[in-house]
Amino acid sequence: MSNPVLVEVTRGRLVESRHRGIVAVVDGSGKLVRAIGDVDAAVFPRSACKAMQALPLVESGTADAFGFGDRELALACASHSGEPEHIAVAAGMLAAAGKDVSSLECGSHWSFDQSVLIGQARTIDRPTALHNNCSGKHAGFVCTACHTGTDPRGYVGYDHPVQAEIRGVMENLTGSLLAHDNCGTDGCSIPSYAVPLRNLAHGFARMATGEGLAPLRANASRRLLEACMAEPFYVAGSHRACTRLMQTAPGRIFAKTGAEGVFCAAIPEKGIAIALKCEDGTTRAAEAMIAAVLAGFFAAEPDLHQALMAQANRPLRNWNGIHVGDIRVTEALA
Amino acid sequence: MSNPVLVEVTRGRLVESRHRGIVAVVDGSGKLVRAIGDVDAAVFPRSACKAMQALPLVESGTADAFGFGDRELALACASHSGEPEHIAVAAGMLAAAGKDVSSLECGSHWSFDQSVLIGQARTIDRPTALHNNCSGKHAGFVCTACHTGTDPRGYVGYDHPVQAEIRGVMENLTGSLLAHDNCGTDGCSIPSYAVPLRNLAHGFARMATGEGLAPLRANASRRLLEACMAEPFYVAGSHRACTRLMQTAPGRIFAKTGAEGVFCAAIPEKGIAIALKCEDGTTRAAEAMIAAVLAGFFAAEPDLHQALMAQANRPLRNWNGIHVGDIRVTEALA
Repeated sequence: MSNPVLVEVTRGRLVESRHRGIVAVVDGSGKLVRAIGDVDAAVFPRSACKAMQALPLVESGTADAFGFGDRELALACASHSGEPEHIAVAAGMLAAAGKDVSSLECGSHWSFDQSVLIGQARTIDRPTALHNNCSGKHAGFVCTACHTGTDPRGYVGYDHPVQAEIRGVMENLTGSLLAHDNCGTDGCSIPSYAVPLRNLAHGFARMATGEGLAPLRANASRRLLEACMAEPFYVAGSHRACTRLMQTAPGRIFAKTGAEGVFCAAIPEKGIAIALKCEDGTTRAAEAMIAAVLAGFFAAEPDLHQALMAQANRPLRNWNGIHVGDIRVTEALA
Repeated sequence: MSNPVLVEVTRGRLVESRHRGIVAVVDGSGKLVRAIGDVDAAVFPRSACKAMQALPLVESGTADAFGFGDRELALACASHSGEPEHIAVAAGMLAAAGKDVSSLECGSHWSFDQSVLIGQARTIDRPTALHNNCSGKHAGFVCTACHTGTDPRGYVGYDHPVQAEIRGVMENLTGSLLAHDNCGTDGCSIPSYAVPLRNLAHGFARMATGEGLAPLRANASRRLLEACMAEPFYVAGSHRACTRLMQTAPGRIFAKTGAEGVFCAAIPEKGIAIALKCEDGTTRAAEAMIAAVLAGFFAAEPDLHQALMAQANRPLRNWNGIHVGDIRVTEALA
């Protein structure tokens, strides 16, 4: 059975392109609150699970020992755009551990954001690992290794203590076994583990509610999600969906995207979390889907509902600014 | 009924994302040689039909009057990357008509190609309409208007003689009625008309074979396709799929992409043309699909078949150059 079309892209009076997807909304107990498509399908969370991967940074006492505040914790959970402020915080995290960019094993790339890339092209010869969208997460790994007395070298490896610890944390949160057979290598070279979409949502619901978690983990989870909601610019960047979604309902919505059309979110006050994947891996569609699913939980607050739906359904303009079509969610999501 | 999955993106041992699509292969008589999915679905050809839109430039005698050779004709059919050579030829076309960049109505944008964009950012303040990927096509429109004694101003409009002429040409080629109800506005502001995919393929088969076309149109069609095959860099640019496909079999394959996952191609010696669309509008998938469909026609030439399949199935590497997965076509296309 096919997953349903959740997002349409129109031109003139016709639908030009269609995006299918799966959506799981789960509460802290693991109960499916809403399900669209095959929510038992295994999905690589990619960068959407960075907040889970940042738990050892807090639980180990590293964040406190190094004096990290909301910005550093948000950046550890981030896929940032490589804006100067992001680079500065990542460099500061490494400096706190007596390290520098040479400790990062994530590789380097130019910003994915066109306006940031243009600025980079005009000011630097080439990007470094600090410009990698994952540099905050990797700085957190290096810091955690240093603080816990582990050699950080090789920290991206499956068998390195940093990744072994993360694997245990994510098994606990998602209730899924993580091992070589569901493991792939992420863009930044660390392991990424495919888990059923509903389990991924349950993991974030546990983080948002603390339900079923040991107090240390529940506290660290709350601290990380609150840091992201307090400093949404450091989770993504200017004009980015994660940042905008969290700015739309300050302190009430956590949202994090991942490559290949994944999006996760949590609404702590509602006790739920969302995980979704656009079947074809397209970001524009995942962004529309998450905004619409989030909006569904705020029907009683018309302004907030409308602000979220304006991120789900939006006009497409051409190079002359002419309105040529729309991205819009389908009935299945409305 | 859903269109089948034609391209998979893998990570580790798992499929991470899936792309569905429709494919029509048609001969000069209109006979369906191969069909996958709903080939009667209406599809906006977008830039894939630029060679059709360039016919008036040749048929009107404009190209000859202005001394245009293969490079100018290829650029009139192009979605170029905005490399310096592309800009120079577009500017030369306008100069031949006594015009300049101020005559272009396509709007402006930075190059879609990262390495070209970096070069642009370091050498210009902002892009002009000459940098627009459609500037060659638009220069052709301006030249055609000037040569035929029509005021070029407003040439992007539905009712301007240039667009009316193109509409008639495309109705003749595709055998489809084109009017307001199947018309959308393209990225560069000219009309784009949605036609059944099989009709789009038939239009290119007519261009490739001359079958059913008046001699003037048959000759102009052959001249345009031959110009693109002779100067494939001017149809797209460095490292681009259209350019690479045509370079793989010089003078034997014509190929042209369009936005939202469209790809058209023709193999004149086989008397067929191909039109396809990735349902979700993704370029990476459309590129894999067209390479695989083309390869199917060269099974008797193992080197060429393999060179095309290497463009259909390719490894994905991360920022550290590690092989993390693949883009590959499914059984439905193999």
